[in-house]
Amino acid sequence: MDEMFSDRIKDVPKSFIREILKVSINPSIISFAGGLPNRELFPEKEIKDATAKVFESCGKSLLQYSNSEGLIELRQWIADRYKKRKNIDVSPENILITNGGQQGLDLLGKTLVNAGDGVIMEEPGYLGAIQSFSIYQPNFFPVTVHDTGMDLEQLNSLHLDKSVKLMYTVPNFQNPSGITYDEANRKGIMACAEKNDFFVIEDDPYGELRFHGEDAPSFYSLNPEKTVMLGSFSKIVAPGLRLGWIVAPEALNQKLLVAKQASDLHTCNFTQSILHRFLCDYDLDEHIAKIRKAYGSQCRAMLNSIEKYFPDGVSNTRPEGGMFLWGRLPGQMSSMDLFNEAVKENVVFVPGDPFYTTVKKRSDFRLNFSCVDEATAEEGIKRLAKAIEKMM
Amino acid sequence: MDEMFSDRIKDVPKSFIREILKVSINPSIISFAGGLPNRELFPEKEIKDATAKVFESCGKSLLQYSNSEGLIELRQWIADRYKKRKNIDVSPENILITNGGQQGLDLLGKTLVNAGDGVIMEEPGYLGAIQSFSIYQPNFFPVTVHDTGMDLEQLNSLHLDKSVKLMYTVPNFQNPSGITYDEANRKGIMACAEKNDFFVIEDDPYGELRFHGEDAPSFYSLNPEKTVMLGSFSKIVAPGLRLGWIVAPEALNQKLLVAKQASDLHTCNFTQSILHRFLCDYDLDEHIAKIRKAYGSQCRAMLNSIEKYFPDGVSNTRPEGGMFLWGRLPGQMSSMDLFNEAVKENVVFVPGDPFYTTVKKRSDFRLNFSCVDEATAEEGIKRLAKAIEKMM
Repeated sequence: MDEMFSDRIKDVPKSFIREILKVSINPSIISFAGGLPNRELFPEKEIKDATAKVFESCGKSLLQYSNSEGLIELRQWIADRYKKRKNIDVSPENILITNGGQQGLDLLGKTLVNAGDGVIMEEPGYLGAIQSFSIYQPNFFPVTVHDTGMDLEQLNSLHLDKSVKLMYTVPNFQNPSGITYDEANRKGIMACAEKNDFFVIEDDPYGELRFHGEDAPSFYSLNPEKTVMLGSFSKIVAPGLRLGWIVAPEALNQKLLVAKQASDLHTCNFTQSILHRFLCDYDLDEHIAKIRKAYGSQCRAMLNSIEKYFPDGVSNTRPEGGMFLWGRLPGQMSSMDLFNEAVKENVVFVPGDPFYTTVKKRSDFRLNFSCVDEATAEEGIKRLAKAIEKMM
Repeated sequence: MDEMFSDRIKDVPKSFIREILKVSINPSIISFAGGLPNRELFPEKEIKDATAKVFESCGKSLLQYSNSEGLIELRQWIADRYKKRKNIDVSPENILITNGGQQGLDLLGKTLVNAGDGVIMEEPGYLGAIQSFSIYQPNFFPVTVHDTGMDLEQLNSLHLDKSVKLMYTVPNFQNPSGITYDEANRKGIMACAEKNDFFVIEDDPYGELRFHGEDAPSFYSLNPEKTVMLGSFSKIVAPGLRLGWIVAPEALNQKLLVAKQASDLHTCNFTQSILHRFLCDYDLDEHIAKIRKAYGSQCRAMLNSIEKYFPDGVSNTRPEGGMFLWGRLPGQMSSMDLFNEAVKENVVFVPGDPFYTTVKKRSDFRLNFSCVDEATAEEGIKRLAKAIEKMM
């Protein structure tokens, strides 16, 4: 049957993380592999109450077809929040509601990328973005991410022609590394985007989850015409609602809307209405403060245990927010080999390989701290240290 | 900015129906243009109750990320219903939950269609399917639909080479025409699919809405390996939930799953759980019987008024179910011109043009009867008759 499939789907990898999650079902395993927000913090009661309210006020309209752009009240709320948090002016007209941030990636690939077009990809980078863009058969230009952002020298030495359509970044508490791009780095990137005429995709699902330090300016505040912002309610409210958004310049937004219509007509208005009710009736900032506090202490617990147990030579990032940190084994040690060793010690994580567009035997790996309490973080790191020592 | 866009998005038309809907907002206009199920029949109270129940039993799991395949209990329910209604054996493993039927189309295009590949399209055909497949730049082979199904002579005279991947059909109460393919026609189509090795897409959102006559066998019962079934809860429960499904042969199903992951990770588990609860706790057959009864009388009212008011020379289909019927003006009269005349009489419908892959000045047009009661149907047809007479 293979000859029936489109070229675009043939080589797209199955999500490696979803494969790992199957291993994690065993309850004796401590998992640092997930990318999930902590379910204990979901505002379950508040969403339940909001749901009851929208049934009363909207009734049957909740259940009918709706428009492709998304609920105008929700788009207005998003615009207002950009103003409040970042002092940037976004029109609700330029916002398109999507099924989570992931659909934003698919719509951008669909709308911008011909087979062979250039996509600049931060490296390591979000594997869901690699998977999503891969469908449109781009020519990936990987650029290494260091502690303060993208390697500008490497970026500026690339031969970037007209075929380069976009650059993908998660500039705040990056998935997988936890790194944040600093202001100088963002300005350097935007200068390159202006010179070479491509869009900078600012995917920012974790931006509100800062536990210390100061925000750097959004790419949008540097140049709104060259920036596409992707947002998501998955990490600040709940992923099960599958709600996110895209902010794009007018002409691109119109094309994204056509792509959205062709993809699934519109995002569920039932969940949009519930979310909007929740956002109006409850104090989101207070809720996010709880998440920040919890993730902050869990991150610290993990960092402390790493210092205490990991053998010399293993290095790691120290994130200012988000859900992930990034470790690196010394020398040429393979984190994929470590994974197999770690499973024996009943601890799992995600090896570095799937976060690169060119798969190699990488020595780095991702640890998730949002779903493990302090004690579990310590026990898991202890087990992982044992596995590393066995390999050394 | 135009040079930034992908070739695939450049020529995809904006949904013409969504443009018409804007005209319909005027309350003095009677609209036969929509494609909406009748909101008065939505089981609002029952869905509200089901929602309260799932909050009690599933709690936080509703709000977390979930799997890409979809809720196994819902897939099992779908498999059981195929067994009950059509006596066909479908494994839940071969079912993928989608965001309405429309996403099924996008995933099929993504998974099967390279630019230039052949897509056989019933004509007139569902414009959402035309739009969705257009994204993947196929070579459309239009085949005319008559009263008993596809024109087999026309189909068999096509030069169908290896590049033909699929045929798109809505064999029950087709959108836009209301036509149903008879058994002999289905067998002829499947013989062609087997000979030329392509998939028959059986899109069946209206299949349960039969008000008289007998079901013909599904393509799946003729050859499951050559059939992809698309289903939807939009017309039998509520479109606002955005829930549908694909049944595909194993190897294709695996590729569709990868495409689904890359498109939006998974369909909303919150709405899936609510729908599943609703389906378990309430009698769907009883609910559907109500819809059939209402649409049946509304269709009859429209047909009676057509007989009474339309001038000689205008012909129309007589559907056995669904939501649409199809009219044809005499000679070379353009239904697009009629549309402009009809707006002046405060009545709208959808002209035939967008239901064809090759746009011409068509003389046929679609009338929706699911959203107008008997009296409104009569008044609207009277106005439309006046507009037709003015043009003749």
